[in-house]
Amino acid sequence: MAHFRQFISLAEAQPPFFVGVDVGGTNTKVGVVDDLGRSLSWTSISTEVEKGPKDGVARIRLAVADAIGKAGLEDKAISRIGLGTPGTMDVANGILLSPGNLPGWWNFPIRDALSDATGLPVTFANDARAATYGEFWIGRGRVLHSMVMFTLGTGVGGGIIVGDLLVEGENSAGSELGHMIIDYHDEARVCSCGQKGHLEAYASASSVIKRTEEALAGGRRSSLVARIDNGEELSPLMLDQEADRGDTLSMEIILDTARYLGIGVVSAMHTIDPQGVVIGGAMTFGQHDTATGRTFLARVQQEVAARAFPMLALRTTVDYASLGGDAGYIGAAGLARRAHLQKR
Amino acid sequence: MAHFRQFISLAEAQPPFFVGVDVGGTNTKVGVVDDLGRSLSWTSISTEVEKGPKDGVARIRLAVADAIGKAGLEDKAISRIGLGTPGTMDVANGILLSPGNLPGWWNFPIRDALSDATGLPVTFANDARAATYGEFWIGRGRVLHSMVMFTLGTGVGGGIIVGDLLVEGENSAGSELGHMIIDYHDEARVCSCGQKGHLEAYASASSVIKRTEEALAGGRRSSLVARIDNGEELSPLMLDQEADRGDTLSMEIILDTARYLGIGVVSAMHTIDPQGVVIGGAMTFGQHDTATGRTFLARVQQEVAARAFPMLALRTTVDYASLGGDAGYIGAAGLARRAHLQKR
Repeated sequence: MAHFRQFISLAEAQPPFFVGVDVGGTNTKVGVVDDLGRSLSWTSISTEVEKGPKDGVARIRLAVADAIGKAGLEDKAISRIGLGTPGTMDVANGILLSPGNLPGWWNFPIRDALSDATGLPVTFANDARAATYGEFWIGRGRVLHSMVMFTLGTGVGGGIIVGDLLVEGENSAGSELGHMIIDYHDEARVCSCGQKGHLEAYASASSVIKRTEEALAGGRRSSLVARIDNGEELSPLMLDQEADRGDTLSMEIILDTARYLGIGVVSAMHTIDPQGVVIGGAMTFGQHDTATGRTFLARVQQEVAARAFPMLALRTTVDYASLGGDAGYIGAAGLARRAHLQKR
Repeated sequence: MAHFRQFISLAEAQPPFFVGVDVGGTNTKVGVVDDLGRSLSWTSISTEVEKGPKDGVARIRLAVADAIGKAGLEDKAISRIGLGTPGTMDVANGILLSPGNLPGWWNFPIRDALSDATGLPVTFANDARAATYGEFWIGRGRVLHSMVMFTLGTGVGGGIIVGDLLVEGENSAGSELGHMIIDYHDEARVCSCGQKGHLEAYASASSVIKRTEEALAGGRRSSLVARIDNGEELSPLMLDQEADRGDTLSMEIILDTARYLGIGVVSAMHTIDPQGVVIGGAMTFGQHDTATGRTFLARVQQEVAARAFPMLALRTTVDYASLGGDAGYIGAAGLARRAHLQKR
C-alpha cells in the first residue's frame, strides 16, 4: 500500500519521541513518531528473513538509527521503541514463538535483542494489534472509544480495543479474529493454521487466490487468464484491477470475500459490541477509493445489515482504515508511548 | 437448578451488604450478599410477567424486604441493589428495551423504578453478564483473572471478563456469544432472533427440543417416545434422564449440542484468549455430576482440543460453573458492590 502520510518537521513536533518498528515477512518499516502520533520520518528495509533473526535485529538497529537521523534527532531524544511482529508470540516475555511468516526466527527473544542492540526499552506487540492501536490512536478509530479491526493480508488478523484495554489475551492469542469459526461442517475450508472453517480460510488473500484458482480450474472464463498466461502471478491486486475493468469472475470472488468478512464482522459485533469496526491490511481492495474498493466495503456493510442485531447494524460504523501501511509502525510507537506514560 | 449453597449467619458476615435481584421470565430470585460474596438469605417469587412491570417492581420490593428480614438486617444496612434482567436492554439508562422473556415489560425504566420503590441506588446489568460476574467473583472463576462464560438456557447467553472489565458493549449487546455465526450457509438453522446460523440456534434448550422433534418425526426410535405419549413435555431434562438410562438418541442429541457449544467456545477463545471458559445456565446437562453431565463436558473439551490453537487447548480451562442458579443474584449483588466501591 502506498505511503501517503505527510511528515511533520522537527519544529512542529511535540516531544517525547518514539520509534515504531513493523516487522513483516518481506519488508520492515521503521518510523519516528511524536507524542501526538505524527510521523517525523520513515524508512523501509527488506526483512531478509533467511539471514536469521540476529542479522535481522542488527539491520533493524541501523534502520532505527537512519529514521532517527532523518527526523533530525539524536538517539537520546527517543524515549522508547515499539516493536510489532507477526505471531505466534509470547508478548509478556518478548519472544517470537513460531510465526509462519518468519521461518528461522522461531523461539527468538526479539524484544530484548532489539533493546540490547539499541540501548532503548522496547514494547512488544502482535503486528495486527499494533496496527489496531495505530488506527485507534490517530487513524479511523480516533473518534471511537471502542473498536474492532480486521487486517486483511496473507492471513486475517484482528485487534480489539475497549476503552483503555487492548485485548491481547492470556497467551497472546486474543483478537485472533481470523480464527473464529464461520462454518462448523466437516467439509469446510482448511485454514493456514490447519483447522477447518476459520474466517481466514475464506477472507484472506490466500483464500482469494485459492478460490480464484478453483473457479478457473472449473472452466470459468475471465480476463485473469490472459494475464496469467502472460506470466503474471495471480494476486488480489490483479483481481482488483480486472474487476475495475468489468471482469465478472474477479468481482464475484471479491464480493464473496466481502460476504465472508461481513459474517466475521457480525460475530465480532455480537461479542464486543464496539462503537466501530475498521477494515485494514494490505489486501483491502481498490486501495479503498476505487469502484471496486467502494463496492467491497458496501458488500461488507450489506452483510452486516442483514445479519447483525438491528440496533447494532444501525449504530455501529463499519469503515476502511485510514493509515494504510503506516498503521503498524505508528501503532507500535503508540504502544511504546502508552508503556512510557504508564511507567511515569 | 437446585439451590445448594450454604447461608452464613449475620455474626459471620462481613459488611457492607448488598441485595442481588435476578429477574427471569418465570421466577425472580432475590438474595442478600455480604462483602465477600456469601449469601445471608435468599427468596424466590413468581415473576408473573403478565401483570406488568409496575406490579412486578412492587412485588420485587416486597421480596427485597423479605430477604433483608430473613438475613436479620434492617433496610438501612443495605448499601446498594444489583438488578439483572434478560435483554435486550439499555444498561446505561436502566431501561428494558424488548426482552423476549418479559412481554409487556418493554421500554420500562426498571432500574429507576426499583430505586424509587426501595429508596436504594440500583446497579443494572444483563442477567448473563451478572451470572458471569458472580462466577468470576466467588464461583468457578474465582481463581481466574479473565474468563468467558456461556449460559445455556432457552437461549445461549454469554459474559466476558478481562481483568476489571465486564464487556457490556456500546449498546448493551457485548458478550452476546449465542449470536456468533457458526454456519454461514443459507440453509443454516434459524435463531430465535430471526437470523441464521447463530450458535443459539444449535446449542440452546430450544434447539435441543427442535432437533429431537426432528429426529423423532424422522422415525428415530427412542425411550423419549413413551414419556411424550404419556403426556410429558419434551425437555432437555428428559433427554438428560433418558441418556443416563442408555437412550441412544438422547445421548446423540446431547453430544451434538456439546459439539456445537465447543465450536462457539473455540471462536470465543480465539477472540478473547481467556484464562478459563465457564459453562453454566439452567440447561447444563446432568447438573454436572452425573454420567451424562460429565460426558457432555468431556465432549465440549474434546471439540476444543480438536479445533483451538494447540497452546490454548492446552492452557485454557473449560469447566462447569459452580454457583448453579444462584450465580445471577450473587453476581448482580457483586456488580452493585463494584459500583459502590467505585463511588467511594
